[in-house]
Amino acid sequence: MSTAWTARYALRTKGITSSAIRELLKVTQRPEMISFGGGLPAPDVFPVKRFEEACHKVLTEQAALALQYGESEGYAPLRELIANNLARYGIKAKVENVLITSGSQQALDLIGKLFINRGDRVLLEAPTYLGALQAFNVYGADYVPVPIDDDGLRTDLMEEPLRSGPKFMYVLPNFQNPAGTTLSEIRRHELVLLADRFGIPIIEDDPYGQLRYEGEHLPPLVVLDRENLRRDDGYSIGNVIYLSTFSKTLAPGLRLGWIVAPPEVISKLTQLKQGADLHTSTFTQFVAYEVARDGFLDQHVKLIRRVYRERRDVMLEALKEFFPAEVTWTHPQGGLFLWVTLPEGLDMQAIFKSAIEQNVAFVPGDSFYANDGREGSRHMRLNFSNATPERIREGIRRLAAAVKRHLTGTTYRLKLPLEV
Amino acid sequence: MSTAWTARYALRTKGITSSAIRELLKVTQRPEMISFGGGLPAPDVFPVKRFEEACHKVLTEQAALALQYGESEGYAPLRELIANNLARYGIKAKVENVLITSGSQQALDLIGKLFINRGDRVLLEAPTYLGALQAFNVYGADYVPVPIDDDGLRTDLMEEPLRSGPKFMYVLPNFQNPAGTTLSEIRRHELVLLADRFGIPIIEDDPYGQLRYEGEHLPPLVVLDRENLRRDDGYSIGNVIYLSTFSKTLAPGLRLGWIVAPPEVISKLTQLKQGADLHTSTFTQFVAYEVARDGFLDQHVKLIRRVYRERRDVMLEALKEFFPAEVTWTHPQGGLFLWVTLPEGLDMQAIFKSAIEQNVAFVPGDSFYANDGREGSRHMRLNFSNATPERIREGIRRLAAAVKRHLTGTTYRLKLPLEV
Repeated sequence: MSTAWTARYALRTKGITSSAIRELLKVTQRPEMISFGGGLPAPDVFPVKRFEEACHKVLTEQAALALQYGESEGYAPLRELIANNLARYGIKAKVENVLITSGSQQALDLIGKLFINRGDRVLLEAPTYLGALQAFNVYGADYVPVPIDDDGLRTDLMEEPLRSGPKFMYVLPNFQNPAGTTLSEIRRHELVLLADRFGIPIIEDDPYGQLRYEGEHLPPLVVLDRENLRRDDGYSIGNVIYLSTFSKTLAPGLRLGWIVAPPEVISKLTQLKQGADLHTSTFTQFVAYEVARDGFLDQHVKLIRRVYRERRDVMLEALKEFFPAEVTWTHPQGGLFLWVTLPEGLDMQAIFKSAIEQNVAFVPGDSFYANDGREGSRHMRLNFSNATPERIREGIRRLAAAVKRHLTGTTYRLKLPLEV
Repeated sequence: MSTAWTARYALRTKGITSSAIRELLKVTQRPEMISFGGGLPAPDVFPVKRFEEACHKVLTEQAALALQYGESEGYAPLRELIANNLARYGIKAKVENVLITSGSQQALDLIGKLFINRGDRVLLEAPTYLGALQAFNVYGADYVPVPIDDDGLRTDLMEEPLRSGPKFMYVLPNFQNPAGTTLSEIRRHELVLLADRFGIPIIEDDPYGQLRYEGEHLPPLVVLDRENLRRDDGYSIGNVIYLSTFSKTLAPGLRLGWIVAPPEVISKLTQLKQGADLHTSTFTQFVAYEVARDGFLDQHVKLIRRVYRERRDVMLEALKEFFPAEVTWTHPQGGLFLWVTLPEGLDMQAIFKSAIEQNVAFVPGDSFYANDGREGSRHMRLNFSNATPERIREGIRRLAAAVKRHLTGTTYRLKLPLEV
């Protein structure tokens, strides 16, 4: 019975994948569970009062517009606010360069729809954001993964992958999901040169760029590309499409993201968006505009940075305190995640199971690899934005216990005396 | 320059179409314009006060959940409310049969993604909802159009089209968009029998079902299909997928629709939805639930029916008063649209241009035909929900003047004496 529909109506099954993380979310909603699993913002930093004022204002003054159908491109004042905010990072976008999407996830879906025909190649980082894999899988992408290290994408390994003719490169330069690494400035320059030389565009996904806790902000690829092309003509052309979102700075429940691209690309993406959902909720767009305006967003991001920096530091401290010496992890300068590497030969599924039994959750690394999950079998992605500092410490203690139980007797016992 | 990106990066162009109506919306936002163009609800019936109370309640009591990421299937209490509301029409859906979508348009997109591989056939009405064409075009659908008459889809003409092996039939049984016609009860029975006999599922799109202004409610196809299959087992199987929306009963700016289907289909659609936008805004879902609950939606729909019935009647009256006798139109028992048929041989684009000059807008019929727009060249779709009664009367007067100017001298002068 359970396959009746699929069998009878030949529904497609290829490319339809469920995200391990989305499914995990359901387990981790139990209150006793300490979850490092999802990429959830801390609910305690949602600017609830400001939302209340915004809803009241929108419904009192603009209900007839805010509850009605709207333009597929998005609410013009919100697009303008986004364009203005991008200027501080050197991104000189105008309203016509900005398309509002139903979260960054829809941006990925529309990019997939526009670029990928079945069998087309997509170059991406290994590991990479699994929501992107989910979005591109549906369109039948073949992946060309390029490894990353502590400085991000290995630009020195890209010639051959680029020669295989991918339709685009998908890159997360800042505080990468899942690894937490940041693409170094020199590699950013190399990457835009490669894009131009090979004529292969870059999708620059930057959901966390504003959440930097230490170090200097690095120039976005879209800015370096403009400099390289020596163009200053309102993004009529360029090799980079830039994506970002309000999910990590205001609230993910709004589902508001955006795409910055040349007008010609925005026009095509807008037509695809019409077919996909007509437009993003006018109501959430009006409300987000009222919340973000008059400099509130900037002030609020400062608060988020403070809160998340502390949580990151607590997690790094706890990892040092509780984890055995064979285990290593990245030191993210921002964002929401860090990436733990275990010694070889451990059974990650067994560790995951032990962790859940101890009421602590993470995402096993294999989810983040495009082709062969085995590359990820030594890794776990840990989120540090959602849990409170106390729970982060307790969670890492429990996770360390779960890991230790699975370290092979020999390795563990040999190392233990040195460690203590 | 303008094709630089497309040329350089071989972006797809096939299947990317912009809806005439969406583009039209921009022109018709001028205040002096009387628009019968879009399918816009009347803003004066938006339950603004109830929305205010709902926003306040949600943000006071549930902000941490309502602003956070949510489940891809949708907010469970809202899914339950929808399932309960459907029971009155005999649709015995449970929570697990309901998937919340970002408007009905996203339902159409997900259906297209699930069913259509390039070149697959889709059977649909001629004319049909052009948002469906837009959604299905992207996936490379080939269309098998079947004509409609005053009783809806011509079920007597379907054997051959069904033998051509379409992946599904897309049907709007109630107050069809654009024609305003309703599928008769006998044809509903015939249709579900055909679906079962040929093993071809029906997508039943029912955005307006609740907005009936006269006559008896007719059984949904999904109910007749269950009766025909003699099944009462919680929709584990069946030949019909049912779609509806809050856009015409609460507010389109929320972008909230839903799909009712067997759990196996819901599960696949949910996975596709994860890749498309993770989930629909939790905030709008929480707010819609608070607005709709405790019987408010039912009460509110009664108000909408009263308001729109009057507007329909005013439009029908005005058509009779101002339009020449060669022109005919449908008499919709509900919904938002009626369908005007002009004598043959007129230039609809010229009439449209004259109408816009007179500050009155409509959608030319050719937009609603899948393959050959020429079938639609005698038709106009008129919306009667958005404008006030006074403006409807004035708009029809202006439109009649625009039409009369283009009626061929002979025909018009011959008929005029008889008419006056």
